[in-house]
Amino acid sequence: MLSNVSNIEESTEPQERSHGHAFPLDEWQIIEPSFEVREVPARETVFSLGNGYLGVRGSFEERRCLYSPGTYLNGFYDTEPIVYGEKAYGFARHSQRMLNVTDGTHVSCHIDEEPLDLSTGTLRSYRRWLDLRSGVLTREFEWVSPSGVPIQVRSIRLVSFLRPHLTLIDWQCRLLGKPAYLSIVSGADTFETVRSGDHDPRVAESKSGESLLLRRKSIGDELGYLRYITRRTGSTMVCTMHNGFATDAYHTIRNESTDGEIHHRYSIKAGANTEVRLTKFVSYYHSFDADPARLNALSDIEVRRAVKSGVETVLEEQKMYLNEFWTSSDIQIDGDPWLQQSLRFNLFHVLQSTGRDGRTNIGAKGLTGEGYEGHYFWDTEIYALPFYTYTTPLIARRLLLYRYNTLGKARERAEELHHPGALYPWRTINGEEASAYFPAGTAQYHLNADIMYALRQYVRASGDTVFLKQYGAEMLFETARFYYDLGDYVHGKGFCVNMVTGPNEYTTLINNNLFTNLMVQDHLTYANEVARWLEEEHPEDFAALCERIRLDAGELTEWDNAAKAMYIPYDPDSGLYPQDDSFFSKAVWNFHDTAPRRYPLLLHYHPLSIYRFQVCKQPDVVLALVLQGWRFDAEEKRRNFDYYDALNTGDSSLSSCIQSIIAAELGYVERAYEYFMKTARMDLDDINGNVRDGIHFANMAGCWMSLVYGFGGMRDWHGRLRFSPRLPKKWSRIGFRVRLSDSLIQVQVRRDGVEYSLVEGEPRTIYHEEEELSLVDETPVVRPLPDIRPAHLRD
Amino acid sequence: MLSNVSNIEESTEPQERSHGHAFPLDEWQIIEPSFEVREVPARETVFSLGNGYLGVRGSFEERRCLYSPGTYLNGFYDTEPIVYGEKAYGFARHSQRMLNVTDGTHVSCHIDEEPLDLSTGTLRSYRRWLDLRSGVLTREFEWVSPSGVPIQVRSIRLVSFLRPHLTLIDWQCRLLGKPAYLSIVSGADTFETVRSGDHDPRVAESKSGESLLLRRKSIGDELGYLRYITRRTGSTMVCTMHNGFATDAYHTIRNESTDGEIHHRYSIKAGANTEVRLTKFVSYYHSFDADPARLNALSDIEVRRAVKSGVETVLEEQKMYLNEFWTSSDIQIDGDPWLQQSLRFNLFHVLQSTGRDGRTNIGAKGLTGEGYEGHYFWDTEIYALPFYTYTTPLIARRLLLYRYNTLGKARERAEELHHPGALYPWRTINGEEASAYFPAGTAQYHLNADIMYALRQYVRASGDTVFLKQYGAEMLFETARFYYDLGDYVHGKGFCVNMVTGPNEYTTLINNNLFTNLMVQDHLTYANEVARWLEEEHPEDFAALCERIRLDAGELTEWDNAAKAMYIPYDPDSGLYPQDDSFFSKAVWNFHDTAPRRYPLLLHYHPLSIYRFQVCKQPDVVLALVLQGWRFDAEEKRRNFDYYDALNTGDSSLSSCIQSIIAAELGYVERAYEYFMKTARMDLDDINGNVRDGIHFANMAGCWMSLVYGFGGMRDWHGRLRFSPRLPKKWSRIGFRVRLSDSLIQVQVRRDGVEYSLVEGEPRTIYHEEEELSLVDETPVVRPLPDIRPAHLRD
Repeated sequence: MLSNVSNIEESTEPQERSHGHAFPLDEWQIIEPSFEVREVPARETVFSLGNGYLGVRGSFEERRCLYSPGTYLNGFYDTEPIVYGEKAYGFARHSQRMLNVTDGTHVSCHIDEEPLDLSTGTLRSYRRWLDLRSGVLTREFEWVSPSGVPIQVRSIRLVSFLRPHLTLIDWQCRLLGKPAYLSIVSGADTFETVRSGDHDPRVAESKSGESLLLRRKSIGDELGYLRYITRRTGSTMVCTMHNGFATDAYHTIRNESTDGEIHHRYSIKAGANTEVRLTKFVSYYHSFDADPARLNALSDIEVRRAVKSGVETVLEEQKMYLNEFWTSSDIQIDGDPWLQQSLRFNLFHVLQSTGRDGRTNIGAKGLTGEGYEGHYFWDTEIYALPFYTYTTPLIARRLLLYRYNTLGKARERAEELHHPGALYPWRTINGEEASAYFPAGTAQYHLNADIMYALRQYVRASGDTVFLKQYGAEMLFETARFYYDLGDYVHGKGFCVNMVTGPNEYTTLINNNLFTNLMVQDHLTYANEVARWLEEEHPEDFAALCERIRLDAGELTEWDNAAKAMYIPYDPDSGLYPQDDSFFSKAVWNFHDTAPRRYPLLLHYHPLSIYRFQVCKQPDVVLALVLQGWRFDAEEKRRNFDYYDALNTGDSSLSSCIQSIIAAELGYVERAYEYFMKTARMDLDDINGNVRDGIHFANMAGCWMSLVYGFGGMRDWHGRLRFSPRLPKKWSRIGFRVRLSDSLIQVQVRRDGVEYSLVEGEPRTIYHEEEELSLVDETPVVRPLPDIRPAHLRD
Repeated sequence: MLSNVSNIEESTEPQERSHGHAFPLDEWQIIEPSFEVREVPARETVFSLGNGYLGVRGSFEERRCLYSPGTYLNGFYDTEPIVYGEKAYGFARHSQRMLNVTDGTHVSCHIDEEPLDLSTGTLRSYRRWLDLRSGVLTREFEWVSPSGVPIQVRSIRLVSFLRPHLTLIDWQCRLLGKPAYLSIVSGADTFETVRSGDHDPRVAESKSGESLLLRRKSIGDELGYLRYITRRTGSTMVCTMHNGFATDAYHTIRNESTDGEIHHRYSIKAGANTEVRLTKFVSYYHSFDADPARLNALSDIEVRRAVKSGVETVLEEQKMYLNEFWTSSDIQIDGDPWLQQSLRFNLFHVLQSTGRDGRTNIGAKGLTGEGYEGHYFWDTEIYALPFYTYTTPLIARRLLLYRYNTLGKARERAEELHHPGALYPWRTINGEEASAYFPAGTAQYHLNADIMYALRQYVRASGDTVFLKQYGAEMLFETARFYYDLGDYVHGKGFCVNMVTGPNEYTTLINNNLFTNLMVQDHLTYANEVARWLEEEHPEDFAALCERIRLDAGELTEWDNAAKAMYIPYDPDSGLYPQDDSFFSKAVWNFHDTAPRRYPLLLHYHPLSIYRFQVCKQPDVVLALVLQGWRFDAEEKRRNFDYYDALNTGDSSLSSCIQSIIAAELGYVERAYEYFMKTARMDLDDINGNVRDGIHFANMAGCWMSLVYGFGGMRDWHGRLRFSPRLPKKWSRIGFRVRLSDSLIQVQVRRDGVEYSLVEGEPRTIYHEEEELSLVDETPVVRPLPDIRPAHLRD
């Protein structure tokens, strides 16, 4: 871990915070009003910029006070063989590791030979802020060098949403009354992250050797590039840099290059009030198969095009893009500005993290850190897809397309495991299974069903039956086929799915996980529905698909029978659904005697010690109550939520948003609020203390679900979009929008009533609780806020 | 893998075998009557010599036609950090790997500059044989060099049982009618095994770097040594070599040394019938803490002492030692000489493998190969201890003492896992857990009980209550304490032990494994018995022990209550004992559609695919029927054996000996015979095709159990030594001896009657079936062979 912030690790003293929050209140900005060296690590994550293709951590341009600078390209990785102390057949063979690539942020400055370094000299003023509407990170400060030269610096940084290969740094300084010699270096170089000595299993293991091999470099006037190839995957990456320099003072420019580094050096004989401006465009291209020279050309064109457009245009485009994003995605909360701030921060980061080219997806830490090696998990489908499906369906489509594009790998994996059909990997970049711990990896067979659940939701909400026909059906049938083979009819029970791990990773290798069985049942049923629809609506396509994947009608019948015979564990005595066959035969975890420092349990107990008890890392049965909610009545939900809520440690960041949704539905509004707040401010307030390693992307996305599903009470079941909103005491209003096909529906929840209106598109029928409402235009339809108090307490 | 036998791997053609057996019939010798290059790998294992401290594989002295030469010192290992793709709290941290140390067998010869190499030239005659009574390996051949010089060579090799540090090679040659220049080199050098590209998970993973660092070496007249230190454990090893050379011909001797190698070179101008004799003594010492110079001195003294004693004395001692061994350990079988041969071969190898200094134990492949990294498993207690307990109790004691000497490590492991007491490791050399796959490692909590089971058996049979008092009780109480904490009272069931893995590694992480629950119940009961006995018989020792390990009476009561409340899974409808809570809710493995080449399953199926079904790698319930046999009636045994026998793949070499025992008990004598034959000739006939990697020690030891427990029908329950022999059709007699305290009892089973007699020691009461017999001297007491046919078929 690169660091010249010597005492970060040791510092335990809490920073003074505004109302207990890490940043001052501002609804559209994340403001760092002063510089604190101990905050550097977390801030590098918070101020990360990205566009789903490229991510740049918020480390200082001047290369001082760094924690762990990082620049990441989504889908750009290297592999190495996974070493097992004891291996077995079918274990994942190769790791996939997202690489820390060439850093183009470097703009350092020496004033009379003293480095610009905020941890030295005197900082007269300082402010850094991320504006969520302009998508720009700005830093301004006035600093006096140790020998007494005052200087003002303003830098802005942007990673373009509309030009995915491009990042921009506009760096300006002005001397404040004293002349000086300035030496400014603007460069690009590569420092791969080497992790070691970290005992947190959630962080990637240390890797030996470097993955990036320098193949070519060049530095000319204004323009330069570095080209690398990955050691094992043989993939090429090009980083091209363009520096535009302007000052009235006398200066010289040198194009320099050292091993694996290129830069321009500006030596300026600056007067008392000299101003300097450096405009730096950096572009990145990578490919596994393109001609390297072609990548060079593309990268070159990209920066030249940006130079021609100019900074203002690039800034303007960014604003326009975000304006559109916020139009459909923004959520307003009146009465809770802290929450408002973090909610927008979260959605902004979700957007920044999301690969949207159909070839990439969303890493567990977005493009802000290398935790989990940059792998994609079910987080995408279960935590992020709802947000995109109901706000920006094009992105949802691209994410699902990624799964289609890796269907071949999923087929290979199923075959390796001697099953027909396809099995999607628990964690991956390239579509191959990369989980080195199968009890909480491959055993999470629910992944297939999670993806298909998201597919159905996307197709229903967007009406994109073209996707379903062209891509969805094939994935659906191949994964259904897998499940049918995985399960077995067990005498006296029905169709059972044994030896799986559900979402709760504190129990593994179990039989008849409630969540998995319900999801598989749903999946098999949906596969039949889609087959019937396709046969009727697109008989030729259906015939061609059946031919291609050798699907026959008998299989469909088998799936249907299995779905009908699916065994659903239930304990009639208690009215509880056991998480799995054996769950209730275990003792409950001794929460009483578990000291707070012993959480998360996974860092302090052997898996065996955890698996032995009833204890949850994250919702499992409770997640089923959300995703398969129509199957449970209110009393069942209450009973089961009450039971499982007490078993939940919340040790996973995937936990609180789900707990919040069902708590809201049950009318436990203040409990829902508490869970929601934990969700909402997790990264901004660094609640888990590890935001320095990257954001918790799924939690951020889950935040949208918590609000829209939870407090908005939205459910989209059986083609009926229904709302049953709740309003926590503190809030006076929630406002959000939901996209259904080409219609954009606005929902405003106030204490005195819920207002529904149509902002865009065709008229739509929705439901307020059980009542059908027609939305025809912007005229609001108002209904009273549902009274969720027990009957005898109502007015 | 060192090899100059180029086509060994590719050769699939079966060798011509005598009656389908690999070696000609001889009851006390394993004879290789001809040289076949393709047999070299297996023969290096078969002709391995060892004494429990030192093991030397049977590779040729001349360093030609090698497969994988190996010299091993029990307990001498190096470690390295275990790398996990995904790690978790409590995972074993360091590997322990038995090292391939300095090879002292090297005696190579050039004849007129052509190397002596049996794969070249002409082999006129060849014979190699291992004599199981003299403990000597001899090779004789006549060979004609490519350029036509005939030579006769005779070498004998021995690893001394009475001088554990010593090995001897006595090498002689004679020219047969033609003069020649001979160049003979006798040396010692080290080539560590580097394994790679091997996809068998039962073989150790490849390791990087060398473990042995040369610290010092010396070569003088006749004497030389090499001293190494291990890279990580810092342990020292010294190998000292003494060469005695004799010939009448003119010769020169040079003392030479190259990097990491020492040797003497003899250049001989040999006449037509010149004879040469080279007598080589090599000694090994290793220690973790001794002064290296002291090891040098010890090693030096050892060879000098041997030189002084002379070859004849060393040979004589070996014979005496083995004579004593066979007196109590031999088993005779009339009517089945092939079996007789392999039975002796197996017991000989068990003896060779067994560490007996209280600091070492028995590796899964003895000292014949590096498979399983030389680790010690439960194989010792469950498979080998019965043999030693009833034949050579001193060795049993030493093996149990090893466990006592590692009790501290077992305590540390329990503490790491947040349990009181002690947990013995699943696999280890130094007492620390080295299993990198906990579902089939640490989860096999039955290890504690296995050791205590062996302890009780040893104490009962030997009457060694001193051991129980001084060592046993402490281990017993600490492990009982662990179990009590591990289990939980579950409503409606009783005391449950959840989340364990039983002996059958084709099912892991289960609740209430029948075997484990029965063994733990037995263990807790025994702990109380011993506590009561100690309190009564040795109150001061008891008080001191309680004080030392802070044991109070309340704990004893808790153990007793838990034992009484132990949940024993049972299905009254079928009369079957489920292997665990979930076993019967799984489908039965599809044996019908599993091609023979797909066995062993573990090499062809993902663990999840195996765990999902009812299928056994090795006996689990069936092992409980053997070890806890008094708890089941005959009908229960028959029902459960019939059921589980059909599920057994026999994929583990620990399988067939146990199946054989219970089959014999049930009167399935011919089935018992089949299982027994698989057990008995597994390594000699290379039934599993992997004997080249080392012996299957547990199976070899299990062979004794199969015979004495199975066909001998011996049971030692509740202080009653009982026999109920069976005789397979083919056999006319079984004879074996059993030691009880100071008495040696002889049993002869013939078709016309079973003869019991007292060979040594005090009179003893035994049981023939239910009848009490008094043995007072060598006068045989004869009883009819039990009639095991169903009642209506009896005479």
